[in-house]
Amino acid sequence: MKTLFTGIKQLLTFAGENKPRAGAEQRETGLVENAAVLIEDGIISAAGPRRTVENLPGADGADTVETGGICLPAFTDCHTHAVFAEPRLRDFSMRTSGATYAEIKQAGGGINSSIGAVRRASYMELEKKLLRRASRFIESGTATIEVKSGYGLDRDSEIKILETVRSASQKTELSMIPTLLSAHAVPPEFAGNPEAYLEYIEKEIFPYVSEKKLAVFADIFCEKGYFTPEQTKKYLEAAAAYGFKLKAHTEQMCRSGGTIAAAHCHAVTVDHTDYCATEDIVTMREYGTIPVLLPASNYFLGLHKFPPAREYIQAGIPVALATDFNPGTAPCLNMQFAVSCACINCGLTPEEALCAATVNGAKALCLDDRGFIAPGMRADLAFFDCEDYRELAYFFGGNVCTRTVIAGKTVYEA
Amino acid sequence: MKTLFTGIKQLLTFAGENKPRAGAEQRETGLVENAAVLIEDGIISAAGPRRTVENLPGADGADTVETGGICLPAFTDCHTHAVFAEPRLRDFSMRTSGATYAEIKQAGGGINSSIGAVRRASYMELEKKLLRRASRFIESGTATIEVKSGYGLDRDSEIKILETVRSASQKTELSMIPTLLSAHAVPPEFAGNPEAYLEYIEKEIFPYVSEKKLAVFADIFCEKGYFTPEQTKKYLEAAAAYGFKLKAHTEQMCRSGGTIAAAHCHAVTVDHTDYCATEDIVTMREYGTIPVLLPASNYFLGLHKFPPAREYIQAGIPVALATDFNPGTAPCLNMQFAVSCACINCGLTPEEALCAATVNGAKALCLDDRGFIAPGMRADLAFFDCEDYRELAYFFGGNVCTRTVIAGKTVYEA
Repeated sequence: MKTLFTGIKQLLTFAGENKPRAGAEQRETGLVENAAVLIEDGIISAAGPRRTVENLPGADGADTVETGGICLPAFTDCHTHAVFAEPRLRDFSMRTSGATYAEIKQAGGGINSSIGAVRRASYMELEKKLLRRASRFIESGTATIEVKSGYGLDRDSEIKILETVRSASQKTELSMIPTLLSAHAVPPEFAGNPEAYLEYIEKEIFPYVSEKKLAVFADIFCEKGYFTPEQTKKYLEAAAAYGFKLKAHTEQMCRSGGTIAAAHCHAVTVDHTDYCATEDIVTMREYGTIPVLLPASNYFLGLHKFPPAREYIQAGIPVALATDFNPGTAPCLNMQFAVSCACINCGLTPEEALCAATVNGAKALCLDDRGFIAPGMRADLAFFDCEDYRELAYFFGGNVCTRTVIAGKTVYEA
Repeated sequence: MKTLFTGIKQLLTFAGENKPRAGAEQRETGLVENAAVLIEDGIISAAGPRRTVENLPGADGADTVETGGICLPAFTDCHTHAVFAEPRLRDFSMRTSGATYAEIKQAGGGINSSIGAVRRASYMELEKKLLRRASRFIESGTATIEVKSGYGLDRDSEIKILETVRSASQKTELSMIPTLLSAHAVPPEFAGNPEAYLEYIEKEIFPYVSEKKLAVFADIFCEKGYFTPEQTKKYLEAAAAYGFKLKAHTEQMCRSGGTIAAAHCHAVTVDHTDYCATEDIVTMREYGTIPVLLPASNYFLGLHKFPPAREYIQAGIPVALATDFNPGTAPCLNMQFAVSCACINCGLTPEEALCAATVNGAKALCLDDRGFIAPGMRADLAFFDCEDYRELAYFFGGNVCTRTVIAGKTVYEA
């Protein structure tokens, strides 16, 4: 089964070497004008100038699709909380009318409402909602998402979420990488006793999730009022012993020390990192920790502080970018918006933001079969109705994806 | 020719009375659950509960469409600069990398590059681009846009823009209301001499545009470094004498007095109004001037200051909302984003933002045949894939429009 996508105005392969020098894009775009991509059995067999690819012997007999527009590696959205039961519409209305988070919580809103709703929801209901969202991700040009648990916060509900991800994976072409985030908050049952809750996770949740391979990563929310850097370190070490790869939410609302704690545990990523300081950046570089920018949540919360992404890039650190899709702080699943928002608010160039959304998104999930376009890679492609790839960052607030290809198969066409 | 749209989960008619009391939404949503809309010859003949509408004698023989989702009056985007030749991609990359506006201008960017590009562009080229954008507006649920000139800034180029709008109107179902904005900036030929340029507009452009009915409104950019309130007043009075209705860009970057000057001339709207003070609000109310919020441009520019929309609403002033779609400060044509951004950043509730984007958008263009859903109104409807209308404000950064109906005809279907 061979397919040739051709007549691509601009192809960005991101297949070159990393360029960790100051001020350079993180990886060259590998721009080819008037290009083609040849796919065989779900794998890219060639990508480059139209003439060259079309004249390859392997192109004989391929189904040919004239696409126009631009083509990128499909997005890898490496940070989402896509399993939730209900949008928080009442919270949103209250907040825009000036209510404080305390008032919203008092009225039964906030994260506890998401936890209650997930605990009450049936597995089938969660699966149906996740699959509907999966279609939306695909329609926006995303082929792979990470999905965190963390709205269950008890053994059965956390497992319900991860099993939802596993079973939904059989029913959508969207790749979903599961992360155990039971340490998202301290649930009402353990109020005031985070240590006991972490112990509960280690004893009651880790063994089962590890044995059933229900999660690739373990993650924790290190923040004042949630979990301390010391708790984070202990928890991540325990998670590593169960075979989980590691992630942590760090320095989102203040500088609490989570980044350094997580890096010392060899976490793959530290996510948010709005308040990172020079010492954190030095540590990330030393340990090879990837910061994940989540600017859509800052936007949604009306915050003016964004992570110091230019400093990361100037320090030669690869930066990843994700939506943070979740019902409380980022009801946005379109990576095109994340790309634009990162340019506007974090000072990334369009080239850097697109690299962060593709190559480095895949790195943030330890996936080496996708994220750029080169022979041998999984054929995950996204096509957009643009004349110039920079339009993806410049025109904002919409969806210009015209086709999404996952493992060689067109799974969405506008 | 009769069509029945039915099975609508939530229909928002906005057909009730205005409620200009403090804190209330500007107009009640008129929410009907499980609703239907009956259309005859492009005009709404009934709207309400499914059973009621389906059992009307007039519903016999109608084409029936089961839509699901939610239905609103299609958006009226009352402030756009949709005729331009080129996106300002280089400016955008420079800005996100930290360049100042002065540096961008020095490098050949800024508004002068848009002016140069429009002056060089052929009429056919401009029309082709406008028509492509018209499709995008329609796909986002918009039925009517206002389109300003203002990137020509000489007689022939300004007329070229307005003639582009007129001829494109024959080739798209999107309604386009033209506005003469020759007083957008002082062109290079009149550098340092705004008075002489305004005189040139009055003598060379007004008579022709008025005679050929190429514009409904005349508009001016009142701002430090552009045109003063005194110049604004004189210009608007001259425009009124030629039969134009009036608009003005006011208090966008500082409080310069444009709002009061424009209100005194009976301008229909004052647009931007970020720096309006109490005195301006009192004047708006006294003169019935409608403020038009354009928060997408504040977002794109990374500004933290937004117009004091809650104060307008509390003062009982109807507020309109638009995209400001333009290549310099708001490359966004999706009213769904404007709605969400106005909630997040201007403190509107979802109900108020949707009213501002429909009923009050039509008022801002003096259109009394659209903007709400009631018998006798033009059948301009937008359908969205939501369970609850508040999702339109809450989920952001994408497009969930599934169908747009203009004058009774389905012109877009996802």
